[in-house]
Amino acid sequence: MSLLTIGTLAFDSIHTPFGKKERVLGGSCTYVSYAASYFTDKINLVSIVGGDFPEEELDNLRNIGVNLNGLEIKRDGKTFFWEGKYHLNMISRDTLVTDLNVLDDFNPVLPESFKTSEFVMLGNLTPSLQEQVLDQLTNPDVFIALDTMNFWMDIAMEKLLEVIRRVDVLVINDEEARQLSGEFALTRAADKILTMGPKFLIIKKGEHGSLLFYESKIFFAPGLPLAEVKDPTGAGDTFAGGFMGYLSKTGDTSFENMKRAIIYGSAMASFCVQEFSLEGIKNLSREAIDKRVKKFSEIVDFNLV
Amino acid sequence: MSLLTIGTLAFDSIHTPFGKKERVLGGSCTYVSYAASYFTDKINLVSIVGGDFPEEELDNLRNIGVNLNGLEIKRDGKTFFWEGKYHLNMISRDTLVTDLNVLDDFNPVLPESFKTSEFVMLGNLTPSLQEQVLDQLTNPDVFIALDTMNFWMDIAMEKLLEVIRRVDVLVINDEEARQLSGEFALTRAADKILTMGPKFLIIKKGEHGSLLFYESKIFFAPGLPLAEVKDPTGAGDTFAGGFMGYLSKTGDTSFENMKRAIIYGSAMASFCVQEFSLEGIKNLSREAIDKRVKKFSEIVDFNLV
Repeated sequence: MSLLTIGTLAFDSIHTPFGKKERVLGGSCTYVSYAASYFTDKINLVSIVGGDFPEEELDNLRNIGVNLNGLEIKRDGKTFFWEGKYHLNMISRDTLVTDLNVLDDFNPVLPESFKTSEFVMLGNLTPSLQEQVLDQLTNPDVFIALDTMNFWMDIAMEKLLEVIRRVDVLVINDEEARQLSGEFALTRAADKILTMGPKFLIIKKGEHGSLLFYESKIFFAPGLPLAEVKDPTGAGDTFAGGFMGYLSKTGDTSFENMKRAIIYGSAMASFCVQEFSLEGIKNLSREAIDKRVKKFSEIVDFNLV
Repeated sequence: MSLLTIGTLAFDSIHTPFGKKERVLGGSCTYVSYAASYFTDKINLVSIVGGDFPEEELDNLRNIGVNLNGLEIKRDGKTFFWEGKYHLNMISRDTLVTDLNVLDDFNPVLPESFKTSEFVMLGNLTPSLQEQVLDQLTNPDVFIALDTMNFWMDIAMEKLLEVIRRVDVLVINDEEARQLSGEFALTRAADKILTMGPKFLIIKKGEHGSLLFYESKIFFAPGLPLAEVKDPTGAGDTFAGGFMGYLSKTGDTSFENMKRAIIYGSAMASFCVQEFSLEGIKNLSREAIDKRVKKFSEIVDFNLV
């Protein structure tokens, strides 16, 4: 089934304690697309870039099965740019530069064929842009995942709540779940958030794994301890891409299959952080992915007898 | 098989965002003993208290199977006292008062019958006191778990390393593992620490669960998301008590059984933090423990196919 990804294509400059990369490929749609491409080749992308975006990278996206009919190219504009510096813990970071550039004019208009997509990964954008996308979807059985961040809770909570009401799964991190709910304990936060509209809630805890909440059930996907983390940029989007890609492939949104999808998402994210930019999730073999997924299974395996 | 616990009996005054308790029962031996008592009634305790320690609490310990022949009671002294205040996250805390009192004179001398204990939980004390205990053990097949803290790494690293060399499993938290190894990534930290002597390493990550390292294998025990955490004091000792209690009961230190022991330890710790002081782990039913352990199994359960 087809997966619609809406968000950014970007250039990132990334400083970590272990190195620096200038103007490498980034953006939520990029990470989502590469991660999802291992599960589906029906990826519909809606984003905006400037004339400086390399034709070669567009070809690369086409080659992994991404339909770019929803990509606006502003020849006289510049692509969204972000520069950030990670702290020694490789979790917290300082944003050094955010140049919205063409993103400032982003007006997501879905091509007709995209409106019936079965799965939608609605990336972190202003809640009103997210709403504009939701208004264009026509498939009554569409399954929508939403990403957002603290910033929108601070300045546009009301609109954000309207958007959250209309999605199937909210994918946020622990601090965002706490802010959104006003509850510190994640189970209480989840209880509250599940009354706001979404049927499922995923709380990402970075290296500590993630939690899936559904009705009164909880699933805990472990974080895989890694010897080397080079660049955490895009890990959340890669997780979402693997997760939604797996759901698109299987077309099954039962709790049991959501668990598997989260493990696949976690596996993709674990590849992502091991290299800079998209390097960790380009050109992976099926075998490498299956092997990584198996590690997630082995690491939590125990028998009570 | 018998479990020797060496450490503190204490009074704690605990401030949390949700309440305050004055001079309640605490100390590592206390938490270890109560947690282990659900698995074994052969607990040998070595500690020191003052004349102010209630006879009733000693009776309570005797009633759960604790042999107090190794407890020194200094009639004219006062019991170790700790006062601390937890931050809103219920993880970090400030120590307000540490009155060593009789602990300053602690000279752990093992009764003859204790020296052959099969399992030893060596609590967080000065490395030279820990060494003194090790020197008294006579069972060639003894299995020793060691707790320690950053403080000893700062002021007595050399002696601490001598002690670490002689134990079977080191039980520390993530920050301690990083400081001890000089490595940030926990897998690298574990690789280094496993060359320092211990066959097994357990890294506790609080609410995020714990990791067991053995040779090149890793086991990840999840943290159980709890709706309410009232008092984290003693959670680490309770974990250790459940863990070592389960090992003492089964007498099996294979990797597979260590995993089960960690799950039992985690379950006991999850009860501990739900109430102040020892209240959460007193008077638990077998059924309640089994049910809690099953939750740890369910929360990470998924099938790949």
